[in-house]
Amino acid sequence: MVPHLATALTGPINELEQRILDCMPAIERWFRLEWMEHTPPFYTAVDVRNAGYKLAPVDTHLFPDAWHLLSESMMPLVVQAAQAAVEKICPEARNLLVVPRSSTLDAGQLANLAQLRRVFAQAGLHVRMGSISPDLNAPREYTLPDGDSITVEPVFQQGGRLMLADFDPCTILLNNDLRAGVPGILEDLHTQFLLPPLHAGWDTRRKSRHLANYDEVTKRFGKLIGVDPWLMTTLSQGCGVADIRQPRDVQQLTDQVADLLVKLRRRHKEYGVEEEPYAVLKADNRTAENAIICVRDAQEVAQRLAQLAPQCSKRAEGSPLEWLVQEGVMTCERLHGAVAEPVVYMMDRYVVGGFYRVHPGLQPTDGLVVPGHATVPLSFEHSTQLPKTGVKPGASAPNRFYMYGVIARLAMLAASYELEATDPQLELLEAQ
Amino acid sequence: MVPHLATALTGPINELEQRILDCMPAIERWFRLEWMEHTPPFYTAVDVRNAGYKLAPVDTHLFPDAWHLLSESMMPLVVQAAQAAVEKICPEARNLLVVPRSSTLDAGQLANLAQLRRVFAQAGLHVRMGSISPDLNAPREYTLPDGDSITVEPVFQQGGRLMLADFDPCTILLNNDLRAGVPGILEDLHTQFLLPPLHAGWDTRRKSRHLANYDEVTKRFGKLIGVDPWLMTTLSQGCGVADIRQPRDVQQLTDQVADLLVKLRRRHKEYGVEEEPYAVLKADNRTAENAIICVRDAQEVAQRLAQLAPQCSKRAEGSPLEWLVQEGVMTCERLHGAVAEPVVYMMDRYVVGGFYRVHPGLQPTDGLVVPGHATVPLSFEHSTQLPKTGVKPGASAPNRFYMYGVIARLAMLAASYELEATDPQLELLEAQ
Repeated sequence: MVPHLATALTGPINELEQRILDCMPAIERWFRLEWMEHTPPFYTAVDVRNAGYKLAPVDTHLFPDAWHLLSESMMPLVVQAAQAAVEKICPEARNLLVVPRSSTLDAGQLANLAQLRRVFAQAGLHVRMGSISPDLNAPREYTLPDGDSITVEPVFQQGGRLMLADFDPCTILLNNDLRAGVPGILEDLHTQFLLPPLHAGWDTRRKSRHLANYDEVTKRFGKLIGVDPWLMTTLSQGCGVADIRQPRDVQQLTDQVADLLVKLRRRHKEYGVEEEPYAVLKADNRTAENAIICVRDAQEVAQRLAQLAPQCSKRAEGSPLEWLVQEGVMTCERLHGAVAEPVVYMMDRYVVGGFYRVHPGLQPTDGLVVPGHATVPLSFEHSTQLPKTGVKPGASAPNRFYMYGVIARLAMLAASYELEATDPQLELLEAQ
Repeated sequence: MVPHLATALTGPINELEQRILDCMPAIERWFRLEWMEHTPPFYTAVDVRNAGYKLAPVDTHLFPDAWHLLSESMMPLVVQAAQAAVEKICPEARNLLVVPRSSTLDAGQLANLAQLRRVFAQAGLHVRMGSISPDLNAPREYTLPDGDSITVEPVFQQGGRLMLADFDPCTILLNNDLRAGVPGILEDLHTQFLLPPLHAGWDTRRKSRHLANYDEVTKRFGKLIGVDPWLMTTLSQGCGVADIRQPRDVQQLTDQVADLLVKLRRRHKEYGVEEEPYAVLKADNRTAENAIICVRDAQEVAQRLAQLAPQCSKRAEGSPLEWLVQEGVMTCERLHGAVAEPVVYMMDRYVVGGFYRVHPGLQPTDGLVVPGHATVPLSFEHSTQLPKTGVKPGASAPNRFYMYGVIARLAMLAASYELEATDPQLELLEAQ
């Protein structure tokens, strides 16, 4: 079943698709060489947005959940990639501890954990689930719809290792993005592999740092395939800490939004893009997800921030947030008439699947990670899973998906650079 | 489409299937550790035979062709495995030269080469075809049914490298099993990767050596999962050089067949196998494929060999062959009423697909690699591609296929040991 995408296969994005297809062997080799120098995150999911005139990643998740939404036909690919990932990190691995987002699991989270358990069991690991929530004191068993069960157990530290009762894992897989901060129990685990590392959590990450790395990656990639990187990126600017209750800070944010809109209008004119550009002003990390406004005119910034101020102050417990201003990218894709956004899943350096995030009630400019969104597995017909050269751009779903996979891998590569730059152990080495 | 297999999912083989499924994480870890110590062949295809009471590999191909027979749904898995294989061997690789079996290609060989080209292009390589036949003096272009084309060009050596005009490959992929011997043009290529190595050709290989290595592998594997290795192996004995025109040599072969049949009758009795055992006496390498007889009674050996003698002498140009006596394994599988034998394909250490070799006119005890066999891609339903634990043995096609994949990987591991043992460079090192 290929989801019927009203606009997925049309638009000026076709030129980019053609360049990417024409350069396929060179692109694959380029990634291969990059992965010789840089370590891919253990697993990654990237939200991609197709605006018709450009294609850009809008979110790079380093603790992806929703693995159960990948279609069954993709699972052998996931298992094979997991085998490669495990072999690289710890070939002797026997036990894997998965740390879920919380100790209280809803149906979706349970299905996700069951899928991860299945994947890693088939990659040769004994998998158990351990919660870092201090409120879990005893194992809690959940029954799955198919009659199977998932037990979440409380973790404890012993001899500097994170364990469950009768279970000493050599590898710990975090499926928890640590947006509430790094709990002490995960620190100082020097004899176990902690994947992804703690500094991949939103406690450390900044969207602006990710975007800066992505810009660097796409500058070189654009040169490789002879394409303006703007077709794959968003213009953005980190604004640093700003207290939106202070008029001076609001003015500064307003100026930065105005600057960005000027640049965007120039680009739209240059590329003949008819749509009016818009800017997104948002918190620079994910700890304050509601701190976000979209504006077409910098003059709206002050008023819109004033509406946000009460909840932002509450969320940040008084301390002002860091802000980021970023080019907004509409999504041109529609699935059954609703706004749709592809999400590409990767394990190690391999694209292993994806799905569409769909929301019937949303506008093309809205973010889609909101309650109530529906998802449709992005699965392929048997005969259309791999790109086909020689097909007219925009006419082939697999070619479009191949392009999504390339953009998603560029974002993953940026995340890899980002993790290197923030690695506390590397910082320590450099200081010596 | 799961092929309808009349007996594939029944029989005492179910106990082996259950053990293999129960031990899945341990098995996958065991293979992972083996691949730390040993290098998998670049690509491998293994013919597996299911006799109902045992499951054994009957042929391990190190230059597999027929890649086009794998179903489309498996191709992403093949590409991903090819990426991993290329990354491991030569991450900088840009050009790949594929050497086909001959310079004159039939429809099947063309489809196979087109499939290999597609796989390695998507793994990031420029692929061209070069023939080592001295009778090819100029490029020969073939048109494929889809309108695409394949050009086979004459190879030449320059500065110790194998090349095509304007094409200097860093890696050479042999898709030619060298059964006619190693041509001089492939020797002394010290600055290119030659895959598989020359000593993987039938010029060097002996079935008896492969079987001895397979016995060693399955002895340890049997211990791991608590199963008698005989359920996965064939008893066999290398007989060395024997001139079947000499009565003394014929008597020696007769004695060895008799010995094997005694051992087999004992095993059949022990396991309550009702079928009468039979022995296969055949050439120890593949240069004389017709030199093969199947007997249930050692007294038949002399007469059967006498019938063979004229063609064997002709084939071997007078020099006597090396012989091997091996337990015969019937195939219990039927597809549309015809004898069927699964063939499992692997790239690097990954199982990536397979198909059934089927021959309507054959008996269960015949070999199936004969002209006129039909093949059916061994493809899976979307929902049944990966093994399912908790399903009654014999009731699940994917579980059966998982078991085939395990047996095929044991044979691949044996081939890896075999290649180590016959590596001329290692021998050189040891001699120093």
